[in-house]
Amino acid sequence: MPFYSKRDLQFQLFENQKVLELTCFKYFEDHSQETFQMVLEAADQIAVTSLFPLLTDMDRNEPQLIGGKIKVHEGMKKIVRQFGQDGWINATFSYEEGGQQLPNTIHLAAGFIFQAANYSSSVYPFLTTGAANLIRTFGSQQLIDTFTPNMYNGKWQGTMALTEPDAGSSLTDLSTMAIPTEKEGVFKIQGQKIYISCGDHDACENVIHLMLARIKGAPAGVKGISLFVVPQKRVPDNEPNDVLTEGIYHKMGYKGAPIAHLMIGSNDSAEGYLVGEANKGLSYMFQMMNEARVGVGMNAAAIGTAAFQSSLAYAKERPQGRKITEKDPSKPQIPIIEHADVKRMLLFQKSVTEGALSLLFFCAKLGDLVHVAEGKEKEEASLLLDLLTPIAKTYPSEICCLTTSAAVQILGGAGYTTDFPVEQYYREARIHPIHEGTTGIHGLDLLGRKVLMQEGKALQLFAAEIIKTISSAKKLNHLIPFAEKLEKYLQRAQQTSFHLFGKASQNPEEFLSDASLYLEYIGILTISWQWLSQGITAHEALDKGSPETDFYKGKLMAMRYFFEYELVKMDGLGKRLVSDDMLTVEMKGEWF
Amino acid sequence: MPFYSKRDLQFQLFENQKVLELTCFKYFEDHSQETFQMVLEAADQIAVTSLFPLLTDMDRNEPQLIGGKIKVHEGMKKIVRQFGQDGWINATFSYEEGGQQLPNTIHLAAGFIFQAANYSSSVYPFLTTGAANLIRTFGSQQLIDTFTPNMYNGKWQGTMALTEPDAGSSLTDLSTMAIPTEKEGVFKIQGQKIYISCGDHDACENVIHLMLARIKGAPAGVKGISLFVVPQKRVPDNEPNDVLTEGIYHKMGYKGAPIAHLMIGSNDSAEGYLVGEANKGLSYMFQMMNEARVGVGMNAAAIGTAAFQSSLAYAKERPQGRKITEKDPSKPQIPIIEHADVKRMLLFQKSVTEGALSLLFFCAKLGDLVHVAEGKEKEEASLLLDLLTPIAKTYPSEICCLTTSAAVQILGGAGYTTDFPVEQYYREARIHPIHEGTTGIHGLDLLGRKVLMQEGKALQLFAAEIIKTISSAKKLNHLIPFAEKLEKYLQRAQQTSFHLFGKASQNPEEFLSDASLYLEYIGILTISWQWLSQGITAHEALDKGSPETDFYKGKLMAMRYFFEYELVKMDGLGKRLVSDDMLTVEMKGEWF
Repeated sequence: MPFYSKRDLQFQLFENQKVLELTCFKYFEDHSQETFQMVLEAADQIAVTSLFPLLTDMDRNEPQLIGGKIKVHEGMKKIVRQFGQDGWINATFSYEEGGQQLPNTIHLAAGFIFQAANYSSSVYPFLTTGAANLIRTFGSQQLIDTFTPNMYNGKWQGTMALTEPDAGSSLTDLSTMAIPTEKEGVFKIQGQKIYISCGDHDACENVIHLMLARIKGAPAGVKGISLFVVPQKRVPDNEPNDVLTEGIYHKMGYKGAPIAHLMIGSNDSAEGYLVGEANKGLSYMFQMMNEARVGVGMNAAAIGTAAFQSSLAYAKERPQGRKITEKDPSKPQIPIIEHADVKRMLLFQKSVTEGALSLLFFCAKLGDLVHVAEGKEKEEASLLLDLLTPIAKTYPSEICCLTTSAAVQILGGAGYTTDFPVEQYYREARIHPIHEGTTGIHGLDLLGRKVLMQEGKALQLFAAEIIKTISSAKKLNHLIPFAEKLEKYLQRAQQTSFHLFGKASQNPEEFLSDASLYLEYIGILTISWQWLSQGITAHEALDKGSPETDFYKGKLMAMRYFFEYELVKMDGLGKRLVSDDMLTVEMKGEWF
Repeated sequence: MPFYSKRDLQFQLFENQKVLELTCFKYFEDHSQETFQMVLEAADQIAVTSLFPLLTDMDRNEPQLIGGKIKVHEGMKKIVRQFGQDGWINATFSYEEGGQQLPNTIHLAAGFIFQAANYSSSVYPFLTTGAANLIRTFGSQQLIDTFTPNMYNGKWQGTMALTEPDAGSSLTDLSTMAIPTEKEGVFKIQGQKIYISCGDHDACENVIHLMLARIKGAPAGVKGISLFVVPQKRVPDNEPNDVLTEGIYHKMGYKGAPIAHLMIGSNDSAEGYLVGEANKGLSYMFQMMNEARVGVGMNAAAIGTAAFQSSLAYAKERPQGRKITEKDPSKPQIPIIEHADVKRMLLFQKSVTEGALSLLFFCAKLGDLVHVAEGKEKEEASLLLDLLTPIAKTYPSEICCLTTSAAVQILGGAGYTTDFPVEQYYREARIHPIHEGTTGIHGLDLLGRKVLMQEGKALQLFAAEIIKTISSAKKLNHLIPFAEKLEKYLQRAQQTSFHLFGKASQNPEEFLSDASLYLEYIGILTISWQWLSQGITAHEALDKGSPETDFYKGKLMAMRYFFEYELVKMDGLGKRLVSDDMLTVEMKGEWF
């Protein structure tokens, strides 16, 4: 059963984002179309042979906490080691670090393939990469030498240990303590962490937690948070480090990945090693956030893609009903893909998932430019990426709850049963608006921080990019109406934004009360822009006489769908955003 | 933990729908405020003491097919009998039939309480009522005497056996055969039925299937479908009737209710008894459909209500973060209900579930009027109910997938775990856009049939009802802006409808291609109207000096929410509905 479209991935990377441009930079100079294709082929191999076959089985056989240790699906042992041995965890790192200097964009594309095949299994290496990246970027050489090699080779699991019972969205309120010892950089850690993905499991030999804690006496709030490496077993003596698995969470979806509740230092003997400087922990985390958040957007888009492909395959094969104009019941039934309403639900999924992918790869390429470009190019890429990150995280996360729902709907009663994977995709999609910052948090980030930073410079860059695409589209006859429509909506979005900014200083609570809606509003504008860009690419390919007319016509239809059915949603959202009725601020708890 | 609001249910029934008006009709003359309250109290008792306590456990311990028999949760035996013995199954039927002549509206309200407490458990009696209703309405006295007493007392389960492997949405294609025997009205049945809710289980002594089948030689299509009673065991000899349980479906939610795959007549010895006349089976079913479909809308609204109440209780207690204007991290955290974005998600749930309830009870009362009124009143109630039924089924079904999602979001990571019931509500909500006719089917029903019937008379009645509410609202100062807004949207909806009707004869496929969107569009208009009605009731109560100011202010805020955040969605939908881009018709399968 197909779980992604190879053809579309090629389109996204090579035709639309023109990822080969990156090979002009020194860091990527050894790479080429061939090396990129080899990476994607290798990812496809693993996905098809190892990951996808376990999709259902990992859902049905959840991890269990047995005798203080989490036991995961037997098949994960091989998979975790394979991710390490084949170099997936540190592929983007430098040759000196044992990496392959692979662009983030291609690495993310490989991740997309893994996630579409089996999201739970993809979580393990994703987390190890993130944790190792923190150590290699901010840690001492000693920390790097001690911990990263076995993370790279897949023997050790990495985690991000942030959340606590009283500190979820409010990281300010972290209370895990770090008490200095006689050894420099070595602290005793005490506290508990909840919802720690891959926080303990038996498919690895050690778990390396990248943990936020507060050094005794540190300032209150976010300015007193430090980052520590806290291994489950000490290195090199392999003795337990007083990090106990207190519980395991059972959850609605992505059941194959274990989520742990950890007690640290219950016996007063958990050692943690300070990463970088004291009290800079949160800023280190945030420097890695953009990547992690674009990654979560990709998780959602990948699950949405798998659900789309699954419902598409079903719709092509399932006969039911006849054309509306056919009244003769003795005529054979037609495949449901011929019904307009089913095509609508498929186009919804196609336009939204491929639109999201387009944005995600655009952001990934910006991430590569931030890494390898210089001067103004680097600075602008960085600003634009900062602005787009809450959108790239949230748009796919929110909308793929709806696209997976459409996939279930296409299968009807069958879609609600466990006989088909769409119900699992529906459950798995639902985590993404929650983790790596809820949608509400990202709304505040976009409206309260990103659009206003550097006096709105990022927002100007964003508008300039959209205008660039509009100008190119206006040169192509068939795209002129779409370019003009986007131009109109861009202007309206700017007016809406300015209207809101007017409230920023007078009444911050009112200003931010509909930040989630603003995020949705700008999200739709952003994906419309990405579709115009994809439309240009498709149009040009057809103009050049490409024989793949089906594929490119499908692209143009999906663009039309997005403009006809999705872009217009900005009308209602925009009306609400400029309304003066501050009812969500005014509402009181006791009135519910 | 609260799963519904008693106060709101009182408001809906007695203040808003003025259900006591029904007691002026002879059929209901023995009833009063007191008898209605007793019924509601009795339902609450069962829900609190028997149903809600099993909510989670029935989800975790699914029915299993063991040795050809489905074994359900042990607790269901007592519940199923209690529903029977306490008279819930036939409460609306006449005294002569052993019923209580209870209005459908109050019966539905009791059902709402059961469904909000534990949806799976509520399915059992709901189906028995529907099946018994078919027998008593269309069956011979002999069938009535043979089958209904043990259905009423809860010993026997009733089912609706429609769906087949090749006939889901397309009932035209039913192929289960009925072969006449020597005995009049007795047929041999052969075929298979899938997705039969409560099609077999061990909490009853017999299962009475109301089954659609085609009498040998009957015309093709819907005109050749007949209705049969097919018991699992023959009556009175209690011998097996060759109805075998071939399989059980495992599904995403409402796992406590068993869904069976049945083989009928594999050994050529399944007896079925014709209900009413041959070839009229589908029309009999459809005469019962309105009730069943309003019932499904209520299922969805009940689950949405339970999720709302659950997330509301959590939001009041969970401290996290501080006011946007509070920068001092040493200040205590505040309950999340004080954050505007959380209030927005709660108001969304409140406005949508209470708006849906208002429509559902309006429809239920129409159902009662159809039953007991006469002449023009009856005729108009019937027409209006026909028109509103696809909306009353679909609006709650679709939107409660989103409100249960909002409930999960409010709980954040906790909401995704099985530690709280919201994830279960999210899974259980998802069935309703599928069963009793998918959303696509209801879209076609509304646009292709209902709005055009009797030259648009139902649509005129609908508009007249809305205008009546608008006129009343215009007499109340604070409601004038809302009345004017609704008036404007009503006019636009009429224009949009006429625009679409213009296409009906030229090109039916284009006319109906966005029928699902039209249903959504009219659904929002309908709920806005219901909110204006609730606003009037609340406004009048406050004007009269009611001391319950919190409750009524909450009502007015929820109305404001609906007008500010939901009604405006008609803008984008309306734009699409009048667009000439027929892309979902034009799209081809091979372009995906």
